[in-house]
Amino acid sequence: MKPSLEDETVAAGGPWEECFEAAVQLALRAGQIIRKALTEDKHVSTKTSAADLVTETDHLVEDLIISELQKRFPSHRFIAEEATASGAKCVLTSSPTWIIDPIDGTCNFVHRFPTVAVSIGFAVHQELEFGVIHHCTEERLYTGRRGQGAFCNGQRLQVSRETDLSKALVLTEIGSKRDPATLRLFLSNMERLLHAKAHGVRVIGSSTLALCHLASGAADAYYQFGLHCWDLAAATVIIREAGGIVMDTSGGPLDLMSCRVVAAGTRELAMLIAQALQTINYGRDDEK
Amino acid sequence: MKPSLEDETVAAGGPWEECFEAAVQLALRAGQIIRKALTEDKHVSTKTSAADLVTETDHLVEDLIISELQKRFPSHRFIAEEATASGAKCVLTSSPTWIIDPIDGTCNFVHRFPTVAVSIGFAVHQELEFGVIHHCTEERLYTGRRGQGAFCNGQRLQVSRETDLSKALVLTEIGSKRDPATLRLFLSNMERLLHAKAHGVRVIGSSTLALCHLASGAADAYYQFGLHCWDLAAATVIIREAGGIVMDTSGGPLDLMSCRVVAAGTRELAMLIAQALQTINYGRDDEK
Repeated sequence: MKPSLEDETVAAGGPWEECFEAAVQLALRAGQIIRKALTEDKHVSTKTSAADLVTETDHLVEDLIISELQKRFPSHRFIAEEATASGAKCVLTSSPTWIIDPIDGTCNFVHRFPTVAVSIGFAVHQELEFGVIHHCTEERLYTGRRGQGAFCNGQRLQVSRETDLSKALVLTEIGSKRDPATLRLFLSNMERLLHAKAHGVRVIGSSTLALCHLASGAADAYYQFGLHCWDLAAATVIIREAGGIVMDTSGGPLDLMSCRVVAAGTRELAMLIAQALQTINYGRDDEK
Repeated sequence: MKPSLEDETVAAGGPWEECFEAAVQLALRAGQIIRKALTEDKHVSTKTSAADLVTETDHLVEDLIISELQKRFPSHRFIAEEATASGAKCVLTSSPTWIIDPIDGTCNFVHRFPTVAVSIGFAVHQELEFGVIHHCTEERLYTGRRGQGAFCNGQRLQVSRETDLSKALVLTEIGSKRDPATLRLFLSNMERLLHAKAHGVRVIGSSTLALCHLASGAADAYYQFGLHCWDLAAATVIIREAGGIVMDTSGGPLDLMSCRVVAAGTRELAMLIAQALQTINYGRDDEK
């Protein structure tokens, strides 16, 4: 009898091998759907603000991923962007839990701006076990498994070793709140980093892919207020397995539900950025 | 005898066919050099500010492109980023003139952030005839020829028809000046567009490739203060041939040497953005 991963039986590639393989296959399938949808007209709706968009493809892809995983792993739990937007609670228990963003970069997707990803993270006993991120338009598959390294299309990832903010390329995202006070804080944080002579600040419209750039050493740091656990879960494993740091903007340990993060190739750089930032309050994912 | 394009003899694809073909071949060769250099260690120097970087690869690629073109077209003139930085005058005469950025996105290149391009524009009688832009890491070749359309890897480009700023994805770049007053104006312009409820603002670190996204309809508008004629020349032909508008930030006609630009899929959107912006004075390319 084939070992059931429902029982945490250890398979060849670790205890969650079958789950990992399922995530890879679904991320690739989702990418095909998204690539096709990029060529078609879209019906766009808004969620929390005029800048917080959703399309039928977000729902279609999320439903596909969850229904396939539920069939194979009926006892598992799910946290997913569109289900949460529809009122599902966002609680990470000890149960095996899938944390899913069907389309990260929905605004990019709506505009056919080619920086769009599917993100599938997996946690057990509240610890992140693996992450799979598919850059749909460039067909790059980023994966990370706890204790087993991080890869992009089979090539091992390694973060940069930069510790000096004045030599760093820093990535961030604007967040969905666009009221004047929030915008002022967002811009003030960018100003602080540019005053500190960061080489540059980039805003590409996908938290997940920005974090993958960090994991691959193509950027030195990332920070954001207003991202969600589904933006962070998969990427966090990938960055840590590439040798990087993911922490809270206070400088303390990452809290996946706190809607804020600093990540960097080195702890020194992450701390410098955490110290430079003013907090923007986005609440918590598990209190919505 | 093969017709000489030095004499403006009309070839099959228009009067500047041989020049265009040479630009394509050199952009592809340059891309190979840049892709290889992305995997190697770099010696980085600064120019006008700590954020204005140059590497040996910028010089190598520029020297290659100019020396090859000079051999084939000895009467032609050249405006190129690194030659200008070394003191060459930046003057557009009536002579056939090549306007070259060997690596657009040098800061990205230094960090191996995969958004890097070679840009080769060509003007005769001060009118832009064609532009060739090679996105080195994604191997996308953007071309535009006056009166003959714009293409990416053979596929015809078409700008978006968006006229509403509150539905627009807008791209910009920070520019090389990082003094407090300039930064404040840069951030204030971004704030104005976000207050006007633009869907998003993106900063990808390459003016040229941002303009190519606009040409392909993946973004609705672009603006920048502090870019140069070599960032604009090739992209301007490509955008216009894709149906878009390239103008001065005053709302008047584009001045290639004025270090500022607004571009959009529609004149309405370009005007809305021009009206929203505060001017940042970067001087003129032809007065340096």
